[in-house]
Amino acid sequence: MATKAKKAVAKKAPAKKVASKKAAKPVDNNALAVETYKKSGGGWTTHAKMPVNTLAELAVAYTPGIAEPCRRIKADPDLSYELTPRGNLVAVISDGTRVLGLGDIGMAGVPVMTGKSVLFKTFADVNALPLVLDTKDKEAFITTVKYLQKNFAGVNLEDIQSPKCYEIEERLKAICEIPIFHDDQHGTAIACLAAVTGALRLVKKKISTATIVVNGCGAAGSAIARLLVNMGAKNVLCVERWGILYKGMDAPMDFVQRQLSETTNPGLIKGDLETAAKGADVLIGVSAPGVFTKEIMQSMAKNAIVFAMANPVPECYYHDAKEAGVRVAGTGRSDAPNQVNNVIVFPGVFRGAIAVRAKAITEEMKVAAVNAIAGLLSDKDLRDDHVIVDAFDPRVAPAVAKAVAEVAMKTGMARVKVDPDKLYKDTMQRVKEYRLKNNAYAKAGSKKK
Amino acid sequence: MATKAKKAVAKKAPAKKVASKKAAKPVDNNALAVETYKKSGGGWTTHAKMPVNTLAELAVAYTPGIAEPCRRIKADPDLSYELTPRGNLVAVISDGTRVLGLGDIGMAGVPVMTGKSVLFKTFADVNALPLVLDTKDKEAFITTVKYLQKNFAGVNLEDIQSPKCYEIEERLKAICEIPIFHDDQHGTAIACLAAVTGALRLVKKKISTATIVVNGCGAAGSAIARLLVNMGAKNVLCVERWGILYKGMDAPMDFVQRQLSETTNPGLIKGDLETAAKGADVLIGVSAPGVFTKEIMQSMAKNAIVFAMANPVPECYYHDAKEAGVRVAGTGRSDAPNQVNNVIVFPGVFRGAIAVRAKAITEEMKVAAVNAIAGLLSDKDLRDDHVIVDAFDPRVAPAVAKAVAEVAMKTGMARVKVDPDKLYKDTMQRVKEYRLKNNAYAKAGSKKK
Repeated sequence: MATKAKKAVAKKAPAKKVASKKAAKPVDNNALAVETYKKSGGGWTTHAKMPVNTLAELAVAYTPGIAEPCRRIKADPDLSYELTPRGNLVAVISDGTRVLGLGDIGMAGVPVMTGKSVLFKTFADVNALPLVLDTKDKEAFITTVKYLQKNFAGVNLEDIQSPKCYEIEERLKAICEIPIFHDDQHGTAIACLAAVTGALRLVKKKISTATIVVNGCGAAGSAIARLLVNMGAKNVLCVERWGILYKGMDAPMDFVQRQLSETTNPGLIKGDLETAAKGADVLIGVSAPGVFTKEIMQSMAKNAIVFAMANPVPECYYHDAKEAGVRVAGTGRSDAPNQVNNVIVFPGVFRGAIAVRAKAITEEMKVAAVNAIAGLLSDKDLRDDHVIVDAFDPRVAPAVAKAVAEVAMKTGMARVKVDPDKLYKDTMQRVKEYRLKNNAYAKAGSKKK
Repeated sequence: MATKAKKAVAKKAPAKKVASKKAAKPVDNNALAVETYKKSGGGWTTHAKMPVNTLAELAVAYTPGIAEPCRRIKADPDLSYELTPRGNLVAVISDGTRVLGLGDIGMAGVPVMTGKSVLFKTFADVNALPLVLDTKDKEAFITTVKYLQKNFAGVNLEDIQSPKCYEIEERLKAICEIPIFHDDQHGTAIACLAAVTGALRLVKKKISTATIVVNGCGAAGSAIARLLVNMGAKNVLCVERWGILYKGMDAPMDFVQRQLSETTNPGLIKGDLETAAKGADVLIGVSAPGVFTKEIMQSMAKNAIVFAMANPVPECYYHDAKEAGVRVAGTGRSDAPNQVNNVIVFPGVFRGAIAVRAKAITEEMKVAAVNAIAGLLSDKDLRDDHVIVDAFDPRVAPAVAKAVAEVAMKTGMARVKVDPDKLYKDTMQRVKEYRLKNNAYAKAGSKKK
């Protein structure tokens, strides 16, 4: 297996070259990001979608005409989806307590929310509003989002510490009329499950019988484990620093980890990561740099699958996994094959949810998203170094949107109905149009703050 | 004087025709507003200002590059003005408790905030974010804005009941690091004072010696009276339903009215609107439809000036004032001369304030805005039916921005310095460019939600 794996790596030599090149000049993306965001006035702008060049146009855009949309919404609040920006507006909200690898940086996290908003727009033509709330207080955060939510069709929670993030999400879901979606949990879980699904199909194993180890039970790891269980995995082992979770374990678990200790590990296996990985079919890391050693990976079952998603330095680099004999490896990095990237998830999930004015994004909708993404690669497409669709494949957001909307309608989560095939086409079309508009916009006039 | 006034009206016959035409089909603007906002998906959209078509671009727009702008802001929070959308972003925030003539309509007020955001963008290329907070609680409103404010360069408060609006504004000003500006108070006051300044110059009277009556001491009326005093008016009479305010008056006044009772009416005149208007030089209405009767206006001094700003039905229509012999009349309506319209104020005020990253918008900055607007009409330009600059005059926002920024820098309210003349030119240029971009944007691609 090791030899075979090495050949696969050899074939993908360019990817490895990029990696070492980037490693040599790690400062480039940083400098470019500062330059790009500075030059573009923060990377994000608003745009008025009507002309106001005459008194007649002013009377329509503002008083007295504007009173009528207000009256209509007063009579039928759901018209807010049609007569205000709400219908296509999502808020990306954080408290800045767990930003990327930067930790608790508060308001300094705004660029991440802006970057995410840029991706929402670019990948699914969803308007997104970047916001960091200037409070670390859980109650204050919940209350603030509660007062804001009716301005939006959905809320993408982002970069909030666990376990606070669980309670924030659950309580907001209970009081809000729109989808509340913590992307660090569910976006990551959906992307990961899509990759796992592709990999299992390639190696002809089943999720129901495979042994799947999730190392790291923070927000992302816990969500992955839960979604694995919801998708039929029977042999999931969750590993935290105090060992493999099992029912009745005496450890300082948060309530989500406690739940997982009861819904996973049916054999009540005790031990550490080494114990868990031995003979496992799939190893998923959302933990810490470098913890997937050669020995651990070599102890796995034949046709081993490893997704090492710590960011930016994974549990093992792609080529290390391959050299250890792993059949299918992937990371969160863009410089190696099989990148597990949330950008294939959240734009399409929200496009689908807001198209039907969904009340929530449920487990069923998440599973639909996983299957939609995995379904984009046919058996012929699948290769060891290609078990997940490319982030820039234009079918991704349309397919996810269609699947999510379809399930929302079937399960009573939709406020309005849409034709799923039309939604697919419309999403494809509007993303294409947005890119055209973006170009036209950039070219018209000269530089602009 | 009546004859002369009638001639002036005759000259402006088209305006009157428009008025009667509109009166005949009052539903048009309403229907058009619903259609326009619906067709344009709420009239407002966002836009990503960088391409994300490749993994390399993704690494700049989002991870890993995006971490660096965060680190920079963490080290120097003021860089948020350069590296996030904040530098050109204002929030238009209401609780929906006093929306136009519609009263307390809560979340149904969003279209007004959106319309205002459209005007911010169109008239001064300021990005504005329409938000209604889903709470009528004063403390909740203040706290929510406090947690949001660092995402913005300024906050335009809008359509909040008085007297709640005073406390909200004052307390937010005390705790926020950015301008908090209740446009219903100060935008209206600045626009009105610019009109009064032009009218007084035309009739060769001085603000310091003129008797000026303000009928209606809600948010707008009180702000007008305060700004009059701050601009040197010595004989201001404020009239509420219980009569002319005077020091020591026993009436159910809010604390702003109480303050006005002490800073106006030096002669301790008692009585009602009729008493106040008798012999007055200027009569300003921010009260109720039709209350400026012919008798009241005819009792005023020679060369009487009347601004009747109740909306949409003023205290007296333009032609009624002229027929009563008033020399200079104006209303808030776009279908008659001398329209007093906030749109000549808030775009330029915020453009100037955010250009210098102002900490607040002070009385001095408001006075500067008044003088900048009034200064756009030379003595030669002034006519009975033209004492205030046209809302679409492209010099307005640049001139206001320049004046506001200049005073902010002089009075220690600016965080950064700009060249006022360059700001004037830049504002003119960016508004022009925005309109070009708007056209290009509208033309590229086809229809788009």
